Parts: sequence; structure tokens; C-alpha cells
Amino acid sequence: MATEVTNGVDHNGAENKTVTFTAVKPQLFVEASKANDAVSFYKSAFGAEEVNRVTCSKRKADQEVPLLLSAEIKLGDTSIIVSDVSDDSNASVKTVSSGLVFCLETDDVEAAVEKAVKAGAVADGEISEGEGTCCGGRVGKVTDPYGVVWAICTPTAKKCANVEA
Amino acid sequence: MATEVTNGVDHNGAENKTVTFTAVKPQLFVEASKANDAVSFYKSAFGAEEVNRVTCSKRKADQEVPLLLSAEIKLGDTSIIVSDVSDDSNASVKTVSSGLVFCLETDDVEAAVEKAVKAGAVADGEISEGEGTCCGGRVGKVTDPYGVVWAICTPTAKKCANVEA
Repeated sequence: MATEVTNGVDHNGAENKTVTFTAVKPQLFVEASKANDAVSFYKSAFGAEEVNRVTCSKRKADQEVPLLLSAEIKLGDTSIIVSDVSDDSNASVKTVSSGLVFCLETDDVEAAVEKAVKAGAVADGEISEGEGTCCGGRVGKVTDPYGVVWAICTPTAKKCANVEA
Repeated sequence: MATEVTNGVDHNGAENKTVTFTAVKPQLFVEASKANDAVSFYKSAFGAEEVNRVTCSKRKADQEVPLLLSAEIKLGDTSIIVSDVSDDSNASVKTVSSGLVFCLETDDVEAAVEKAVKAGAVADGEISEGEGTCCGGRVGKVTDPYGVVWAICTPTAKKCANVEA
């Protein structure tokens, strides 16, 4: 029985390993390249504070504005990540119809993905070294039975490996 | 200049009043009446802990299962609200295509809505005494220029005024 689950009724055979999430951050994808405007709007409308920004250099000659890979804003005590939709094949937005992904940060991505899948989530591809997602480290994505996409990843990296056009 | 905005570049005429948000909670809407299953899944898959639940009695004779108006779960330090989609005309889901609303809790709903609208959000109806939303108190909804719905409300009420069929 997973020790972090306080209600033991609904295990459905999920594995025993304890998985700890150190942060949960909703990630909003907006039409490229409006993420910068969106961050400005959230500052103006809700008093959000920007705490972290990762911009990638343009990847194709016809992209005039660098993509905002992620801007982390704080609203109260909550972190929200705002990102441009990217045509990067690694980007989690490829599987996002809702424009939202929940990023779950953990040091043990494999165990967390395995546990989620055993509970009924569907893994979306292999765990990989992420770029173009909320996180720069290892990332695995699962879609839950209710259509929500969860990006399970190591804690947010601050750097982006720029790829010039 | 709003004191909570640290970057003064992007005010766009938003009013001066300081608005403080005491909590920010993503609210996921799932097909009725699967919210209870979803909560069980999040416990099993991610070790979520349920901290609060508001169930309404059935409202129509053909609804066999009471709606789960809101179940608040904690994942790490983050609260997420899971709700059945309701056919209640007051329910915020009427305006939700994405299945997600961000609930912003504040003691001054009017000022927060006004500030958001001045910054470019579109108000969705009047501020009302909410039921069928994330919150049981006063609630005003706005849609931002990027399609995200924000429910600005007084802090979560624990009770639901049941309406029998």
C-alpha cells in the first residue's frame, strides 16, 4: 500500500512504491508566439509575478520570434507555466487538445509513470530527456481516463539547449 | 500602479487597486457522474489526498447518482478541484470547453473582476452567489484573451444547499 495514499479503498492494484511529487504546476499552452503577451496579461490582470523564463532561439528560418518555451508565474502560492505551442516534435503539446498539462515534478519519473499506468493511465511514448516541455530533464507523459495529460518530470531545469535555424 | 505587480511594463490601464489572491485552484470538470471515480484514480495513480468534498442531492428524477459538486484533492502542496459536469444553469462548466477552470480565491471579487476586465479579460455574466462552481460564495467569471476561464470567488464554502428533485 502506497504510504502517501491516506484512503486505502481505491488502489486498483497500483504498485506499492511510494512516489513523492515535489511540485505540481499547471502548464498552459497558447498559440505561438503569444505566450509573452499572455504572461504580461496575467501580470496585469491578476498581479502574477514572473519567476523563471526559458526562451529558445528560433528553430526555423520563418520563425521570427523566439519561442517562449516556458515562463513560470506565481499567483498567490501557485506556480503556473505559460508556454508557446511549439512545432518541436518533442513538445508535449502534440498530445494536448485542451491547452493544459499538469506537470508533476518528482525525482523518480519511472516509478511515477509506472504507478500511474498501473492505476489506469495510458503512457504517451517513452520517458525521454525532455526539451520543449515544462521541464528540461527526464519526462514521461500519461493521459488519464478523464482526458487530462500529466507530464511527470524531474524538477524544472533553468536552461534550454538552443538550436539555431 | 498595482503594488503586487513587480514588472510595471505591461499595465495596459489596469486599475490601481491591489487584489490579493489567497488561493489558486485548478478545477477539472469530468463527465457526470465520473468525478468520484476520477478522485479515486488520482488517489491511486498519484497518491492524491482528498481534503474536502461537497455532494449535492440529485436535482432531477432521472439523475440516479448525486452530483459531486467539488472534491478538493491535494497533490504535493497543490489543491485541485474535481467536479462533475452539471446541468445546473449556474455551473461554470456552461462556459467551459476545455474542462478546466482556474479558481482564484479573494475577499474582493468585484475588484478582482474589474481589474481583470480592464486588463483585457471578458466578464462572463454577472457576479453572483455561486453554487455549482468551485466555490459556494460570491463568484465572477472571466475569460482571458487566451481562452482560459478564471472563476474569481470568495474562499471555498464547505456546504451545498441541496435541492431535491
